[in-house]
Amino acid sequence: MRLIDLATSLGCALIGEGGDREITRVAGLEDAAAGDVTFLSNRKYAKYVATTRASAIIADASLASAPCPIIRSAQPYVTFAEALSRLIAAPRHVAGVSPLAHVDPTARVDPSASVGPFVSIGAGTSIGPRTAIYPHVTIGPGVTLGADCVIHAQVSIREDVRVGDRVILQDAAVIGSDGFGFATRRDGTHHKIPQVGRVVIDDDVEIGAHSAIDRPAVGETRIAAGTKIDNLVQVAHGVKIGQRVLLAAQVGIAGSTTIEDDVVFAGQSGAVGHVRVGKGSIVTAKSGVTHDLAPGSAVSGFPAFDLAAWKKASVAFRRLGRTRPRRKR
Amino acid sequence: MRLIDLATSLGCALIGEGGDREITRVAGLEDAAAGDVTFLSNRKYAKYVATTRASAIIADASLASAPCPIIRSAQPYVTFAEALSRLIAAPRHVAGVSPLAHVDPTARVDPSASVGPFVSIGAGTSIGPRTAIYPHVTIGPGVTLGADCVIHAQVSIREDVRVGDRVILQDAAVIGSDGFGFATRRDGTHHKIPQVGRVVIDDDVEIGAHSAIDRPAVGETRIAAGTKIDNLVQVAHGVKIGQRVLLAAQVGIAGSTTIEDDVVFAGQSGAVGHVRVGKGSIVTAKSGVTHDLAPGSAVSGFPAFDLAAWKKASVAFRRLGRTRPRRKR
Amino acid sequence: MRLIDLATSLGCALIGEGGDREITRVAGLEDAAAGDVTFLSNRKYAKYVATTRASAIIADASLASAPCPIIRSAQPYVTFAEALSRLIAAPRHVAGVSPLAHVDPTARVDPSASVGPFVSIGAGTSIGPRTAIYPHVTIGPGVTLGADCVIHAQVSIREDVRVGDRVILQDAAVIGSDGFGFATRRDGTHHKIPQVGRVVIDDDVEIGAHSAIDRPAVGETRIAAGTKIDNLVQVAHGVKIGQRVLLAAQVGIAGSTTIEDDVVFAGQSGAVGHVRVGKGSIVTAKSGVTHDLAPGSAVSGFPAFDLAAWKKASVAFRRLGRTRPRRKR
Repeated sequence: MRLIDLATSLGCALIGEGGDREITRVAGLEDAAAGDVTFLSNRKYAKYVATTRASAIIADASLASAPCPIIRSAQPYVTFAEALSRLIAAPRHVAGVSPLAHVDPTARVDPSASVGPFVSIGAGTSIGPRTAIYPHVTIGPGVTLGADCVIHAQVSIREDVRVGDRVILQDAAVIGSDGFGFATRRDGTHHKIPQVGRVVIDDDVEIGAHSAIDRPAVGETRIAAGTKIDNLVQVAHGVKIGQRVLLAAQVGIAGSTTIEDDVVFAGQSGAVGHVRVGKGSIVTAKSGVTHDLAPGSAVSGFPAFDLAAWKKASVAFRRLGRTRPRRKR
Repeated sequence: MRLIDLATSLGCALIGEGGDREITRVAGLEDAAAGDVTFLSNRKYAKYVATTRASAIIADASLASAPCPIIRSAQPYVTFAEALSRLIAAPRHVAGVSPLAHVDPTARVDPSASVGPFVSIGAGTSIGPRTAIYPHVTIGPGVTLGADCVIHAQVSIREDVRVGDRVILQDAAVIGSDGFGFATRRDGTHHKIPQVGRVVIDDDVEIGAHSAIDRPAVGETRIAAGTKIDNLVQVAHGVKIGQRVLLAAQVGIAGSTTIEDDVVFAGQSGAVGHVRVGKGSIVTAKSGVTHDLAPGSAVSGFPAFDLAAWKKASVAFRRLGRTRPRRKR
Repeated sequence: MRLIDLATSLGCALIGEGGDREITRVAGLEDAAAGDVTFLSNRKYAKYVATTRASAIIADASLASAPCPIIRSAQPYVTFAEALSRLIAAPRHVAGVSPLAHVDPTARVDPSASVGPFVSIGAGTSIGPRTAIYPHVTIGPGVTLGADCVIHAQVSIREDVRVGDRVILQDAAVIGSDGFGFATRRDGTHHKIPQVGRVVIDDDVEIGAHSAIDRPAVGETRIAAGTKIDNLVQVAHGVKIGQRVLLAAQVGIAGSTTIEDDVVFAGQSGAVGHVRVGKGSIVTAKSGVTHDLAPGSAVSGFPAFDLAAWKKASVAFRRLGRTRPRRKR
């Protein structure tokens, strides 16, 4: 694709000569070579601009000049993502059911869907148009899977789960496993509470490799539209997650907690059960929320409290070891 | 089922009129509608009793009145679990081996067991009566699996593992993967120590989705009867876990550690290797045990120490950022 | 095997009588019986030497006498590992492709490789000599897998991944899942950045059960030779991990971070994105690295700082709850 055509298709101005250059790839600043478009989004990498061998760079107005033409964008990272989509071929999914798949006769698979070898689809389940199901996926009975979903290998979708459109499940995600619900008897033994509620995954959700979304005993566990969940994340029974939420890797949300829209949990953080995390809140890495948070909160630590105060306390903590030199040793 | 019959079968008194009502479902306080029985176990939800539309409520003596009849129970959560068991149909597992399964000719599968499509069962392995094995489960050679187990999809049970009766393995659990054992040579390279010990899972254990129970080089890793393990939990090589232990999601127990009976590890907590956690101890969320704990300990933090002291220290930590206003900035 | 022959084959002196004893097994100090060789590596277990029933013990010069002959080694743990390798039979992998596997006609599988039932191998993929692939493994198109690898059940290796020789992937590891890369638009929605980079796993790497190695949008994620990764570990998109690195269970490394050679991350620790952890550094359990670390650093806490200082600060933290008795309560 010609550089000028790429810039035009991205709705961006092209600054500098070279609109005729052929662009075939997107690459990082350090790796880029002739034919590549690169991008500057994280200021930390600005030092690499001068020596990049890229044929063009996507950057905002803070970058005045570069050794190659600049594709000017107010949101370079978004533009980078769009450029990538234009330059790569989307994976082709061949419509049809592999003769090595096992589809219950009562299941309905749209003719435009793609079902790989060793896929198992249960009774009464419905698979929407253009949805691609990779090898070794297990889909239980009574499941509804929407249109244009991509279900990677080794995923398990348990009975009665509902999945919307354009949902992506990375390899080995588990949707609808039993919640960890036990009633402890007087003698200390744990009586399993049948987990017969439902899991609902709304449109445009992505769930990472090895993440687990548990079903509750009653009611439902719900992931609302546009939410993105990274790898190895635990979402317990009865949790409600709002729209456009981001849960980074290894986050854990305990039972019956509600996460409102636009919340971000950074890596290895979590929340205890039965709390509400208000809209747009940010929970930093490794932190743990133990009580309700007002909308727009930014918290850190365990138990998590105000981020700015936590930063000061952390600096003071670091001094704790130094301030009072001990006589002995 | 008539309400009065349900109460009677639960061994509970029914308080109030309406014993003739037909009960078909169990539901949470807020979601319940006519025909549902609900329950009050966590005091936090008491405020919803007045407006519930349930046809009956399970509660202890602290609830004097409700807009519906009360099923009186000293342990409402246990009674709720039992009511649920009575009202739902247990999943039916059709006895027999799917023609799409691969069973080694030397394996013994009880005729009452249920083996789904794409299950692989190794040489010399034995599957007990009424055990249900979902699609895509891999069971290695030399495995013994007891009666009435439920093995969900995508589970891997490695060679020579022993599993008792009534064990439930949630989707994608791995039992018997190699322990992380290496001997580091002088030149810094890591020599793999063959992990040829055994894993033993006793009766009535449940293990969550994506949890891994590693085998040791020598000896065994053991999970004793009645212990319940949540999702994404790591149990390393040579760990011994006692009876009725609860390990919440994302807990990690390092090699050769012993967890005695009735211990509870909350979410994202852990223990280092080669320590002993005494009977009935409680480790709070995100904490890390670094030394032996006496029976009945309650600890928090990392390194974990007495819970009450940790709570005070945490309050003091939070004040650290405030107490000494710094001149600069 | 005779004890004297075992000692000789290990290149060790045998101290004491009994070279004719037949040795058949390796066992821990407490479990060992007649016919077993045991070992003393961790000083914590020295108290069990006097009562061991083992027929021989591997130990360094710190152990002067024992109730059985001593195999003298300056590195007892390495010698133990080697003894184990000599005494156990390596698992046999029968060469050939199971008739129940699905191999794309354009894939090349070395005739000495072993491919189990329900394995799926994609177009253009190449499997090297003597590599063993257990049941239910999914290997996408365009993958290169070297010689003498062991790929356990339920693993997913995605498109275009390159794997070297002697690599071991434990059950359900995922290699090449999409990185968690989204560009957030002004309206708060998250635009997926196509993750079309590559994952490269070099020789002699081992990756644990349920660990995930993500592919990046551009460039590659790389795990260099001799690195060992435990279970449930997250390695995000674009991470570069050096040689002989150890990542213990439940570690998380965020995107674009570089881990140099010989680094150790203990359990449940992690690093944020875009930082560099210098050669030979040690990150203790549950810690989180938030900035570049010089080679040879030892750090703890979150944010992580110098280990010795953190230990003092932790002791002071513990005192915080005690020092100032509060009037109220």
